[in-house]
Amino acid sequence: MERNIKLTIAYDGTDFCGWQRQDNERTVQGVIEDALEKMHSHPVSLTGSGRTDSGVHAVGQVANFYTDIDGIPPDRFAPALNSSLPHDIRVIESCETDKEFHARFSAKARIYRYQFICRPLLPHESRYNLQLRRFPRMEVLNEYGRLLHGETNCSIFAGAGDTSASKNRYVYRAYFYMAGDTLVFEICANAFLRSMVRSVAGTFLHYEEADTPPEKLREIIATGERVLAGPTLPPQGLFLWQVEY
Amino acid sequence: MERNIKLTIAYDGTDFCGWQRQDNERTVQGVIEDALEKMHSHPVSLTGSGRTDSGVHAVGQVANFYTDIDGIPPDRFAPALNSSLPHDIRVIESCETDKEFHARFSAKARIYRYQFICRPLLPHESRYNLQLRRFPRMEVLNEYGRLLHGETNCSIFAGAGDTSASKNRYVYRAYFYMAGDTLVFEICANAFLRSMVRSVAGTFLHYEEADTPPEKLREIIATGERVLAGPTLPPQGLFLWQVEY
Repeated sequence: MERNIKLTIAYDGTDFCGWQRQDNERTVQGVIEDALEKMHSHPVSLTGSGRTDSGVHAVGQVANFYTDIDGIPPDRFAPALNSSLPHDIRVIESCETDKEFHARFSAKARIYRYQFICRPLLPHESRYNLQLRRFPRMEVLNEYGRLLHGETNCSIFAGAGDTSASKNRYVYRAYFYMAGDTLVFEICANAFLRSMVRSVAGTFLHYEEADTPPEKLREIIATGERVLAGPTLPPQGLFLWQVEY
Repeated sequence: MERNIKLTIAYDGTDFCGWQRQDNERTVQGVIEDALEKMHSHPVSLTGSGRTDSGVHAVGQVANFYTDIDGIPPDRFAPALNSSLPHDIRVIESCETDKEFHARFSAKARIYRYQFICRPLLPHESRYNLQLRRFPRMEVLNEYGRLLHGETNCSIFAGAGDTSASKNRYVYRAYFYMAGDTLVFEICANAFLRSMVRSVAGTFLHYEEADTPPEKLREIIATGERVLAGPTLPPQGLFLWQVEY
């Protein structure tokens, strides 16, 4: 009788070509599937809640797989996998879940956090934060964030290669706050287009610098014209924080 | 006319065999001296405030060197060096200082910070924090810290290979505090013996776990017997924070 095992996974994305398995590339899915194959003595496919881009970190990625091993209690898959995984991936928790649970299709919301520091970065900060060359006006950024709330056509934020049929996403919140001297952008939506968080952040910072009023940015977003988006920011500083079911 | 240039330097110690230049090893002093040699077209020796151990980080290491280059304003040495240094070393600041300034002998105090997290570490935390398997009693640790205040015989904390003639050091403060969910140990002294901070922290945690009263630990320290020290903790999580002149 196969069991459906749910994993909560953290990783330092620096040395990975993203989540999705690719031939000849080091990816998070690929490395964990290799560990599962070793444990099961046959290939096991791992379904993630979504694909993080190359370089993006995670503290709460969720994935599931079906196991035919009877002897291991569900919570012991985490330490068993960790013993053969490299140190830049840790399985935080493992548990059994119902047969129908699907890490991607069952997910109700994903939360990302993007960390910025508004001064030159120290070496121990540069893997996990992005440098901003000036201090943006938080109140303007937060007005922009409110433009996304609810069902929004996110076409302008879709990275190259996004294949989603609909570009509409339901955004629960998108706001900026300070944590010490770190500027954090947190965004929660039912799902995200490819590279969307990096594009939203880059677009907001671009139009804030240009002093664009929120009502103008609302019109720009409504055009759906990708060319009107700001730059897609680098992945350092971006974390898949949590997935809600 | 030679100028004496003072540098403030930050580094991620993970991939360095410590500060001090060694043949066939990647060290912070060695890498910066190589950059200085390239800039000057002859060898230049760099004097640091002290040697950090392999794996120890710095946000405020200080060093000085004499330059015979006339054309560069003192504050431009920082960007000039950064352009050829690897990303795990950054020169934060450069300035001219008086001829007699010596980064080691002129230093009045060094401040170290050691970061601990009392739960399994996430991958993005493990370069810069040390995991503690239990939550220690801060008030006991801080009573221990007060034992070191003032002129103290630090023999029991001297790492193997320490060659100091006197093992007495003047400790200005040694205390523990919480910063978010990080437990920080900060210690400030006129100077430190080899691996001393890692030995002090390991000794305090060892005796706190054994429920040793402060007056008993005072006697243990007074013996000067190295074998009575607790374990020397790993370098992850330890930062040379600041040097005072």
